[in-house]
Formats: sequence, structure tokens, C-alpha cells
Amino acid sequence: MIPSAAPSAIHRVFNFSAGPAVLPEDVLLEARENLLSLGKSGIGILEISHRSKEFEAILAEAEANLRTLLGIPKDMVVLFLQGGASLQFSMVPMNLLCPGDTADYVVTGEWGKRAVVEAKRIEQAQIHIAASSENEAFRRVPTDGELQLSARPAYVHYTTNNTIFGTQFHRVPDVGSRPLVADMSSDFLSRPVDIGRFSVVYAGAQKNAGPAGVTMVLLRPEVLRLSAVQAERLPMLLNYRTHIEHKSLYNTPPVFAIYITHLVLRWLVRNGGLPAMAQHNQTKADLIYRAIDAAPGFYRGHAQPDSRSQMNITFRLPTPALEDEFAKQAKVQGLDGLKGHRSVGGLRASVYNAFPLAGAETLCQFMAEFARQHG
Amino acid sequence: MIPSAAPSAIHRVFNFSAGPAVLPEDVLLEARENLLSLGKSGIGILEISHRSKEFEAILAEAEANLRTLLGIPKDMVVLFLQGGASLQFSMVPMNLLCPGDTADYVVTGEWGKRAVVEAKRIEQAQIHIAASSENEAFRRVPTDGELQLSARPAYVHYTTNNTIFGTQFHRVPDVGSRPLVADMSSDFLSRPVDIGRFSVVYAGAQKNAGPAGVTMVLLRPEVLRLSAVQAERLPMLLNYRTHIEHKSLYNTPPVFAIYITHLVLRWLVRNGGLPAMAQHNQTKADLIYRAIDAAPGFYRGHAQPDSRSQMNITFRLPTPALEDEFAKQAKVQGLDGLKGHRSVGGLRASVYNAFPLAGAETLCQFMAEFARQHG
Repeated sequence: MIPSAAPSAIHRVFNFSAGPAVLPEDVLLEARENLLSLGKSGIGILEISHRSKEFEAILAEAEANLRTLLGIPKDMVVLFLQGGASLQFSMVPMNLLCPGDTADYVVTGEWGKRAVVEAKRIEQAQIHIAASSENEAFRRVPTDGELQLSARPAYVHYTTNNTIFGTQFHRVPDVGSRPLVADMSSDFLSRPVDIGRFSVVYAGAQKNAGPAGVTMVLLRPEVLRLSAVQAERLPMLLNYRTHIEHKSLYNTPPVFAIYITHLVLRWLVRNGGLPAMAQHNQTKADLIYRAIDAAPGFYRGHAQPDSRSQMNITFRLPTPALEDEFAKQAKVQGLDGLKGHRSVGGLRASVYNAFPLAGAETLCQFMAEFARQHG
Repeated sequence: MIPSAAPSAIHRVFNFSAGPAVLPEDVLLEARENLLSLGKSGIGILEISHRSKEFEAILAEAEANLRTLLGIPKDMVVLFLQGGASLQFSMVPMNLLCPGDTADYVVTGEWGKRAVVEAKRIEQAQIHIAASSENEAFRRVPTDGELQLSARPAYVHYTTNNTIFGTQFHRVPDVGSRPLVADMSSDFLSRPVDIGRFSVVYAGAQKNAGPAGVTMVLLRPEVLRLSAVQAERLPMLLNYRTHIEHKSLYNTPPVFAIYITHLVLRWLVRNGGLPAMAQHNQTKADLIYRAIDAAPGFYRGHAQPDSRSQMNITFRLPTPALEDEFAKQAKVQGLDGLKGHRSVGGLRASVYNAFPLAGAETLCQFMAEFARQHG
């Protein structure tokens, strides 16, 4: 169902980068066609006004497809912003916390930690760590039973998938009636999600959804608790209400990044939507985890099996020298971007939606051969 | 010296859009070649890691060319950020003002007004309007003699070119030893500038320098006056020091927008640099202003002659109905994007660096003909 053969004649490697990451080749080919002239407009997509009817149509279709794919409820707004998830780490607490409020954070990796750092900058708000797997080297995500939630937090924040450590929530945590906020950057659009259970969802596009430079935010305006006094001090650009009122066009949006995301959303619709992606992603991840488990004395998966990510597969070899050798030899064979995050080392295979099955198969063959030679 | 003929066979119109705006066709063609594979990497420019050596080389060359073109002094840092000039409206006061400080603002249009609105959000700081041409419908920029500067402001802020009203400073205002901050978004790289006279310069790329989605900031770290207490409350992403320390790579940068800007900077270097651009831009602007002045009863330039912008040429016709007719007929003839900003109406011809001379000539012929028919 998901195209695996390259439709173009251009030499392309298997790109395991954690993000920016591989995009569907169909999308790149279509973008290429429109770089000097968007359709018959005579104006390239990089040059077209964000107030043009052509771009308005792109933005509207992107939102409509996103709503269809995820089943976004009518009372949630969809925004296309700049600044990445990193800016959302600040915008969420700035817009959702009043003086005296508490927010709960579930910390399962580096990005969750950074979200906490930014939330703690808010004056007169309490940030409560509802769970953290840091003392277990972030090898797993907590169970619902382990969550120590506040009675009435303004929201509960968690990270659905942890790119660096290779763990993922395989359920939406049960937080009762508390508003739920999720950083979905690295598994957004990779599987169906019960989006109705969330109050805010945000995601940088550069994993499954598009290129770096645009961030999608889905939110229910009812959770915005910013007082008039707070709003007076908050930069217009950091106030969600500004972007809601102006439909993501308060200032010049990142036109091209939105355009590519729009093409990716169309590609998703054409290719069976999120159920098809979930199956495709599971097939690839299962293959690679099986290759890890097939040589247990040689490969060591970082994540505990029940928390394994289908997006980022992290593993170690017996020595850092062997890990370097692995990445080097893999690159020669057209398997690129396998080095782990610079903060933790090891190896990491990121296999987002657009990553082809053939790439996972080739990696598995390489892993078996490498273990045979060096094990 | 500036290529004016279209090197590609693709139908392109003359795009007078105020931004996002026309880009050099050479740049678009090169980007097109690298969309599926950056050089021989086998990874497209939209998919490549921001930590890759390929992207590091792009970022380094972009900075080096920017330094050469503008003659940026060594003690100024160069940053590539997200959020547009609109986010800089906030970041400048957030990073340059301490409690009790005063900042002077010269207001010559809508963007200067918005900069003031954001600066006034800073607690315990005074914002002093050193000059405003609002009661003259922003038809001109003030003389140095009209500036009522504070004795010791933290900085003096002004907008070098006003896209909406079509006015431009043809000098760097004399502010003595006061630190000078400029929003150069709409004439950045259009002419040589004595950059040594500035403490902070910022510019959204989407006029002369690249596509929407990246903002360049040049600054002297000595003007950063943020106290430790203030820094504790400021989002990491809004603190210039974060971006200085991480060399614009604190979080995922807008890779593709930076890449295109890098190609534009190379194109500028190849085509004679800023002196050549200044000459090219003056030639185009002179032609169009001459066409306005040639039919004084029919066309009325908005800007006073001594404040006329070489980037955005604004003019009115006897009635709004005639203005609509003008824009409509012009579009049919391949002259696109001539409607004025939705807030002021009228007509506007934006003729940035990459706008070809032939487009200005074609517009002038059209203007003469239209005036003959309807005058």
C-alpha cells in the first residue's frame, strides 16, 4: 500500500535521520514541479504571497485533510506556527496557566525535561512532576498506575514518543477529567489517535508530517486561561488567541513548509490514512527489533520491550568503537543517519511514515551480517 | 549585470508581491536540482539533518557571504532564527531593556507601530516615541532634526523601509552614541549599508533575501542587558544568548529557508554585491516614479519625493474603481501582485533585488497606456 520503490531515477540513500527526515518521493517530485510556477500561476511556491488565493486554498486543504485524518473534533482549532516544539514548551504554560495554578508533567525523556524547564519559568505557577523515568535512563514510559497526578492541575503534559531514547506511549494515559496536553512531534500522523481525549496537541512537522519550519497546534480554546493582565504582557506572537483570530496568518507564515506539509497530508490520504501508516510502521519496527533480539549478546535494545518506539529504534553494540564501525560501514552501503543522538551515543534507526520497508529490510540484513563478522 | 531574461522555459509572470516575493530564477533552478538529493548525498535538502556536515557547510557559507556582502564587523554575531520580524519586535526589548530603562522608537509605518506595541508589553520600561509621521499618513520619514531622542535610551529603534506606505530612509539616522536598532526586513541587502553604526539589525528574509520562514539577526552582544533574574523568566528560545551559544542550532532550524537564503547570498556575491543591487534597484524605481510623475493628474504617489522607497512604490488613481480595473488589466498582461496592502488600498509595485528591469519597463508602458485610456 505504501510506495516502496523509488519513482525517480535519482540516486537516494536510506535516510534513517531522526528529523529532519525522509519525505515521500511523490511529494518531493510534486514540489519540484511547482518551484518555478505553482500550477499555471507563473509564480513559484517560494515566491507567492501568503495572502494569495492559491495559498489560502493550500492552507484550507491542509487543515481539512488534517481534520479528516485525525478525526479532529469541531471544537478544536488547528494552527500552523513557527518555532518548533521548543516554542510550544513555553506557549503552553504561558497560555494555560494562571497565577496559583499547578501543571503536571510526565517526564520520559530529554524533550519532556526541556518542557519542564520552560514551564518553570512561569511566575507563580507550580510545576508538578507526575512521573519521571530519568533514574531508569528513560528506558520506559510509566504505567497509568504510576502517575501521581495532582487533584486539579490546569493540565497534564506528556511526550508521546521519545526520539532520543526510543520509547513510546502505546496508549493515551488515563488522566481522568484533567485536560491532557501532548507533544506529539515525533509520532504525529504515524497511527490513529483518539484525538478527542486531548486539550492541546502540538507537533513540529519535521518527522512524519513535513520539513523543519512549521509546527502544528490543535487546541480547544476553552483551556486558554490567560487573564487580561497576563495577556497585556505576553507578546502577541506567543498568544494562541492571536493565531486563532488570524487563522495562522497574523504575520507571514512559513509558506513553503506549510505547502510541503499540505502535500504530505494529501499523500497520507491517498495512501490509506493513519491505519495504513500504523501497519506500515509496525511492520518495519518489528523487523528491526527482531534483528536486535536475534543477536542478544551483540545488540542491546535501549528501550524496555513494552515501551519500544515504532519511530526511533535505539540500540547499543558491545563497544563504542564497534558502534562507530557499524555506522561507518552502514553508510557505505547506503544506510545513512544511524548514529544515536549526540547526548547518548549508540545507534538509532528512525523509520517514520515515509521510510520505505526496503530500507528496514536492508538494515536487518546488514545487522545480521555485521553481528556475524564482529560478534 | 543582473540577469533579466528568464533562463528557464517555464512561463513566469512579473511578480510585484510585497513579500514573499520574487526570487532569482538561478536560485530556484539550483534548489530544484537538490530537492531529491543535495549534491551526491542521496538525501534531499528538505530531508537532511540540521546536524549533518552538509548543512553545517551551508550555514557557515551563508554567514560568511552575509559578512562579506554587508561588511559585518567581527564583534557582531549573525543569527538565523524563526518567527519573522514580528518576533523580533518582542525579542529586542526583552533582551535589551532592564527595569527602569527607556527605549526610543521612530515610528514611520505599520511595522514600527507594531514594534512599539510589543515593546510596551515589557514591565517597568519606558517607551518613548522619538518621532512619528502617523499624522501625515506616513508619507515621509523624519529628518534628523526632527528626532526627539532621550538622553540615554537603551537603544533607538527604527524601520529602514516601510512596505505598506512606500517610504524609506535614505540615510542612517544620526543618533549620536545611542545604540541603534533597525528593522531592515524590506530593504535588507538591497544596497550597501554602514553596518558598523548599528547595534542590532534584523530582517525577515522574504523580501530580498530568501523565502518566508527565516529571520536574520545581526547583533553586538555588548548591548544585551538582560539580568540573571530576567533571564530566569524568559523562554530559552527568546533569549539571544541561547542562539549565540548554540550558533543558531539550539533547536531544529528552518533548514530549507536557510538553504534558499544561502543560494540568494551566493547569487548576490556572483552578481556584483550590494553596489550592483543598489544601482539595479534605483534604475527600476526611477523608471516607475517617472511614470507616476508623467501623469500627475491621474497617478498620485503616496510618499513624499524625498522619502520615496526604492523597494515598494505606492500610488493611487483617481478612484478605487479605477484602481481595481488597473490591477485587473495588469494581471491579464502578466503584471501580478500590484494591489496595495489591504489596510490602505491603492496600488503598490514591489521591486526587490530579484525583480527584473524588464518588469519595471513593462509596468511603465502599461501605466502610460492605462492613463491614456482612462485619464
